[in-house]
Amino acid sequence: MILEDEFRNIRQTTVKLIQNLEPEDTVVQPMGDTSPPKWHLAHTTWFFENFILKKYIQNYSSFSNHFDYLFNSYYESQGDRVLRVHRGFHPRPLLKEILQYRSYVDEKIISLLQTNMDPSFHELIELGTNHEEQHQELLLTDLKYIWSHSPLQLQYNQSITNDPSLIAKRNWLKIDSGLYEIGTSDTSFHFDNESPRHKQYLYSFEIASTPVTNGEFLEFIESNGYNSFQFWLQEGFHWSMEQKIQSPLYWKKESGKWYHFTLNGFIEVNLLEPVTHISFYEADAFAKWKGMRLPTEGEWEIACEMYGFRDTTYNSLETCQFHPTVVKETDSAFIGQIWEWTYSAYLPYPNFKPWKGSVGEYNGKFMINQMVLRGGSCITPLKHVRSTYRNFFHPSARWQFSGLRLVRDGS
Amino acid sequence: MILEDEFRNIRQTTVKLIQNLEPEDTVVQPMGDTSPPKWHLAHTTWFFENFILKKYIQNYSSFSNHFDYLFNSYYESQGDRVLRVHRGFHPRPLLKEILQYRSYVDEKIISLLQTNMDPSFHELIELGTNHEEQHQELLLTDLKYIWSHSPLQLQYNQSITNDPSLIAKRNWLKIDSGLYEIGTSDTSFHFDNESPRHKQYLYSFEIASTPVTNGEFLEFIESNGYNSFQFWLQEGFHWSMEQKIQSPLYWKKESGKWYHFTLNGFIEVNLLEPVTHISFYEADAFAKWKGMRLPTEGEWEIACEMYGFRDTTYNSLETCQFHPTVVKETDSAFIGQIWEWTYSAYLPYPNFKPWKGSVGEYNGKFMINQMVLRGGSCITPLKHVRSTYRNFFHPSARWQFSGLRLVRDGS
Amino acid sequence: MILEDEFRNIRQTTVKLIQNLEPEDTVVQPMGDTSPPKWHLAHTTWFFENFILKKYIQNYSSFSNHFDYLFNSYYESQGDRVLRVHRGFHPRPLLKEILQYRSYVDEKIISLLQTNMDPSFHELIELGTNHEEQHQELLLTDLKYIWSHSPLQLQYNQSITNDPSLIAKRNWLKIDSGLYEIGTSDTSFHFDNESPRHKQYLYSFEIASTPVTNGEFLEFIESNGYNSFQFWLQEGFHWSMEQKIQSPLYWKKESGKWYHFTLNGFIEVNLLEPVTHISFYEADAFAKWKGMRLPTEGEWEIACEMYGFRDTTYNSLETCQFHPTVVKETDSAFIGQIWEWTYSAYLPYPNFKPWKGSVGEYNGKFMINQMVLRGGSCITPLKHVRSTYRNFFHPSARWQFSGLRLVRDGS
Amino acid sequence: MILEDEFRNIRQTTVKLIQNLEPEDTVVQPMGDTSPPKWHLAHTTWFFENFILKKYIQNYSSFSNHFDYLFNSYYESQGDRVLRVHRGFHPRPLLKEILQYRSYVDEKIISLLQTNMDPSFHELIELGTNHEEQHQELLLTDLKYIWSHSPLQLQYNQSITNDPSLIAKRNWLKIDSGLYEIGTSDTSFHFDNESPRHKQYLYSFEIASTPVTNGEFLEFIESNGYNSFQFWLQEGFHWSMEQKIQSPLYWKKESGKWYHFTLNGFIEVNLLEPVTHISFYEADAFAKWKGMRLPTEGEWEIACEMYGFRDTTYNSLETCQFHPTVVKETDSAFIGQIWEWTYSAYLPYPNFKPWKGSVGEYNGKFMINQMVLRGGSCITPLKHVRSTYRNFFHPSARWQFSGLRLVRDGS
Repeated sequence: MILEDEFRNIRQTTVKLIQNLEPEDTVVQPMGDTSPPKWHLAHTTWFFENFILKKYIQNYSSFSNHFDYLFNSYYESQGDRVLRVHRGFHPRPLLKEILQYRSYVDEKIISLLQTNMDPSFHELIELGTNHEEQHQELLLTDLKYIWSHSPLQLQYNQSITNDPSLIAKRNWLKIDSGLYEIGTSDTSFHFDNESPRHKQYLYSFEIASTPVTNGEFLEFIESNGYNSFQFWLQEGFHWSMEQKIQSPLYWKKESGKWYHFTLNGFIEVNLLEPVTHISFYEADAFAKWKGMRLPTEGEWEIACEMYGFRDTTYNSLETCQFHPTVVKETDSAFIGQIWEWTYSAYLPYPNFKPWKGSVGEYNGKFMINQMVLRGGSCITPLKHVRSTYRNFFHPSARWQFSGLRLVRDGS
Repeated sequence: MILEDEFRNIRQTTVKLIQNLEPEDTVVQPMGDTSPPKWHLAHTTWFFENFILKKYIQNYSSFSNHFDYLFNSYYESQGDRVLRVHRGFHPRPLLKEILQYRSYVDEKIISLLQTNMDPSFHELIELGTNHEEQHQELLLTDLKYIWSHSPLQLQYNQSITNDPSLIAKRNWLKIDSGLYEIGTSDTSFHFDNESPRHKQYLYSFEIASTPVTNGEFLEFIESNGYNSFQFWLQEGFHWSMEQKIQSPLYWKKESGKWYHFTLNGFIEVNLLEPVTHISFYEADAFAKWKGMRLPTEGEWEIACEMYGFRDTTYNSLETCQFHPTVVKETDSAFIGQIWEWTYSAYLPYPNFKPWKGSVGEYNGKFMINQMVLRGGSCITPLKHVRSTYRNFFHPSARWQFSGLRLVRDGS
Repeated sequence: MILEDEFRNIRQTTVKLIQNLEPEDTVVQPMGDTSPPKWHLAHTTWFFENFILKKYIQNYSSFSNHFDYLFNSYYESQGDRVLRVHRGFHPRPLLKEILQYRSYVDEKIISLLQTNMDPSFHELIELGTNHEEQHQELLLTDLKYIWSHSPLQLQYNQSITNDPSLIAKRNWLKIDSGLYEIGTSDTSFHFDNESPRHKQYLYSFEIASTPVTNGEFLEFIESNGYNSFQFWLQEGFHWSMEQKIQSPLYWKKESGKWYHFTLNGFIEVNLLEPVTHISFYEADAFAKWKGMRLPTEGEWEIACEMYGFRDTTYNSLETCQFHPTVVKETDSAFIGQIWEWTYSAYLPYPNFKPWKGSVGEYNGKFMINQMVLRGGSCITPLKHVRSTYRNFFHPSARWQFSGLRLVRDGS
Repeated sequence: MILEDEFRNIRQTTVKLIQNLEPEDTVVQPMGDTSPPKWHLAHTTWFFENFILKKYIQNYSSFSNHFDYLFNSYYESQGDRVLRVHRGFHPRPLLKEILQYRSYVDEKIISLLQTNMDPSFHELIELGTNHEEQHQELLLTDLKYIWSHSPLQLQYNQSITNDPSLIAKRNWLKIDSGLYEIGTSDTSFHFDNESPRHKQYLYSFEIASTPVTNGEFLEFIESNGYNSFQFWLQEGFHWSMEQKIQSPLYWKKESGKWYHFTLNGFIEVNLLEPVTHISFYEADAFAKWKGMRLPTEGEWEIACEMYGFRDTTYNSLETCQFHPTVVKETDSAFIGQIWEWTYSAYLPYPNFKPWKGSVGEYNGKFMINQMVLRGGSCITPLKHVRSTYRNFFHPSARWQFSGLRLVRDGS
């Protein structure tokens, strides 16, 4: 019953995210890393249909024969599919047809949920809803990217309510050297890549209680940080020179002032908010410019657990601001506004085992050339903002809500 | 009054072309050469607004400040604009907003048409309507390309009515050596690149009365023509090997039979119809494989005028079949089903002068690296099917309705 | 006997061209269009071996089994070969081995020449020597490009002897409208693409007696011609913006003065010399900026024949200056310093037939996407500087000695 | 005195490596990752000149002003330089001039060594010689790649003396869970990236005593491992499909037998030798196909130290076989034939500090997107074959002598 409610809620939330969009908004794909919003709606549904309905309903009759091809993301075991970079080639099925597809599948899943008590069925439902929540975030991230190209001052939302009167002071939180444990051993839902829980030796360090702000990042820009090789990884410096990158994604200077495109429109940059939409390269260069560094994911996780990073008033997908807020003094510590780049490559934990079966392609096969981000952003579903969650992107990615937190070595 | 009617008709025709499309269909751009259907609707309107309304209405108030940027195609004189390959990045303005834009501009143009008797104003209107007709064809060509990627059996139309009982025999029409004149000296509307009329010496040749058919092209395929270097231009052979091209665009062999995607759905290839959607390279290789050659544009034009190529029952945009038909015996000669590649580069005629002013960017600046096509296709507005009309594309282009007619040297 | 002398001379000339080079100079290929000097030495030899020795000597024993693969340029009929852009991947065979290869083949050819009286054998020899002369020019052009990358002030030659005291005045030579004949009907050697001789109707025009100079081109640069779209073909403007091209290839401004790299070293630009190393796009833009145009190849050829363009003191490969000279008053007219871009695409003449057999791949298969150049340059073997010779390159090519001559339409 | 001898020896060794090469062999660069052999000779010399002579000799007079530009590899602090991928554009300076450059610098260094007792001077010399040794290996690796393109059966060496009579059995060496220390705390020379020594918790595992052989890898090939997605990282599978990779680099099947190009010529693959020239992707896929995995670098280092991996008869650069040998029973354990891919990203150790000053660009700035290799190969200078040495390459690199050793999780 709880699972059914959760299923209903999450499925409805996704649809709510596009309720103010028009069909045209849901089709395009201006960059290979993004997907059309319509695709997210369909792919999450395909996930339920393909991994659950086909398995648990005898002689299941698919909504459409062609949706396996159209909405399989990257599951090699599930056969041929549209190339990732061609997802924006497909005007059809229409948005309204995809909504019908969602209803068709939802009805059948709910029906199963009322009768099927098989734990492994329930596990797959839980995986499916967590998967869908990940795509809620991606849908908004991608929409932001898509709309950023328009000169038409598009605005998804109108709710920024920053009260800058109680700005949090930055504290340096100390962690001693020692053997710690990271990763989850929870029996509650988590992704395969978060486990197993395992020992890791950390050397003493201090971590900032608040993430780096736009104001701090602006100092880096103004002190010519983007063009000073000594702070950069070689590939990062080459990347920024080639791409002519001189500020975070979405920033634009007009008449001496910095603005940025947000889901709340094209607005002036608030210097007190956490900086976001920067690549790992920029995050790392900023930290080095400060004479500090990024945390490893182990350091981040331990600090998060010791200092109650989660004890804060969250600004998550559910609160519908869709933009980071200024950190306030009343927050004892602060995460959840932005994803935080770590200096850890996305690799398997000791004794890591991917899920069995086809869903084993979920996480393990991406464990190369990507860096881990921790925390969660202002558009992350609250449940996903947890100390053990491992997000990962290529070091040049900027279209996520990605920023950083500073660390300095212990004495 | 005639001009006003023509203006109304042409503008309405364009809108009729998309009346069965959904908003999603009008947004995407799966290849740089194509444009989103929505863009064609807006760009043709911008043409009237920008080159006419802004000039003839004092203090003209634009429908939107941003449309110059969004819908200028390639007029450098008209300022900054969306990169051609980024036209599919823009979900907004919505289709319905673009239709409002069309009404807004139409109303003002009609109003001007009722009062302004200035010949140069009338000339610009005529240019605008001819321009719009060109985009009617492009809109359909692009839609075909867009929809061709879908596995969903999309169908724009349902009207193929080939009666293969009266197939035309191919005759070889002879033209003697001599000094001829090509190009137009008409005072009626024509594009700047069609003039001036000028002398050209032709050597005797024979030209086929009918274009090459699918059946003939299939023989080329089956005799391994695609992989036989001796028939190919070097760049063409390299192109076909690199792209792994082994049949016309849209063709697919299933269970031993050839099908192709058409605006009338995915249907079996009719061997009697003219072959289409081939590049210049393929057309040229086919001709060489036959021991013949493509005509030059001069040869084509003279043959067309001498042998009444126009004396046929047209299958044009207006007849709404949107697919080539079999040539029938009752047609005295036959053009207008497909664009025919010539072995003439698209270059200026002697004493060619581009139009004065900004519209001078219309044709002249493309006179490099492209080949001329003559005739007109099953989706070309009838008025454009004329002996002097010069169409032009890069030699590798295949998404147009492009085929060929054979020529052999005279004795 | 004459043929044998010619064969010996031409073969020796090629070797003389590299006598001051070191082995290292002959290996590299910094751009796909160029070839390593060593490759030219070997390929021209392979031409004799492959098309003549293998045919005329029974059981001919090749110098090396691998040279067909290594030194076939683009003859599909002759089998697999090194990709053009990989010619610089091959340190071996060594330069000295290639010189042995040359001797091996030369000896056998000379031996045949003393006994074989077969006209078609003689024709092939003549083709081979003309082919070799083309590669003499290419070898130097490519060497110039290769050395241009070095900061080491390399100098191939030291012989510029411009006497600017008798600068030629530019005259405008008038040609009347009429039916002319171009192309060759000579029985003496010419390339297949130069024939057949055929009628062409020309409209009256005036052509400059001298090519455009560096000084004139500098005015174009200084008046911002490179950044003024209205003078450019669209593809040309896009090309120059993308490549950030703001002057001819090899030009560099230092302390307010223009220098260029030449085979005579890095020297100051002499404003009186013909401009060279410009693309078709730049040549065309310059002409339009002047309010004039480039000649067609027909116009060029007729003007050349009527006004005795050949009546000049040549500065050709044989005179070993390897750099264009200032045109002097004592020259009645002037060609042969630079290749002159025409506004004619490289297409087959009416009734053109490629040579029979494998050498038919020589010219015909390149007749697409290239523009014709006429005249001949300061490194062209004298014999090739003739009114009917058709050189051809892609419109963006700049590493040849390419410049232009202006034309204006007749009244 | 010892240092002087070492300096002399190492410098002579480098020159000995090219003594059988011809000038042509030393110039080309068929892939961006490789450098021309000549460049290695000059760059290592520039390292001494630039970081030592310029610092320790007052008013030092450079051998050439242009060598900073030509032979700086990637030191941003040392100014502008030839793009890495353009190193093969430079025929000059000649090989013999570079040898003169080497003598010029050697003489001055030796002179300094005889008088200067400054420890930091000595440290720089040591860095310079270790740097040179790294380039000895690279020079041979690059030469192998360069020569592999030739059909001419090139052979650098002729000394393979495999005696397969005493093949080593594979043992599984067990390591218990526990807190270990890795990294160096040596005061003897090591690279900055090898330190500091630090604690790392390892979970129990078993590691193979011998690397994977060609025979084992052939089983992977023959069981269609290259085309079985389930063993591959997604980026790896994409890479192998795109590049059509179906065997290790240099392998070629002829008449049913596998051959490979080696520095000892093109020879049949010996199934008992360690497999080499595979990417991280292939190594990882092989391990997964075996149901095992790659070691982490920590696991590798601890196993190496515990089981005396170094206690073997080395086949290193000094023994001049330049090809891996079969592991023999008399070897107690076995490293040093090939570099072994680990599943550790190349990241900074805890509290890592790059060297101070310009040489700080040596290692730290490459710590992204690369994977660590451990061990050392048959062309690695013996001194570099040590348990703490961290080699690193992008996961797709194959031109190094790279293979793998299997690990299985402990129970």
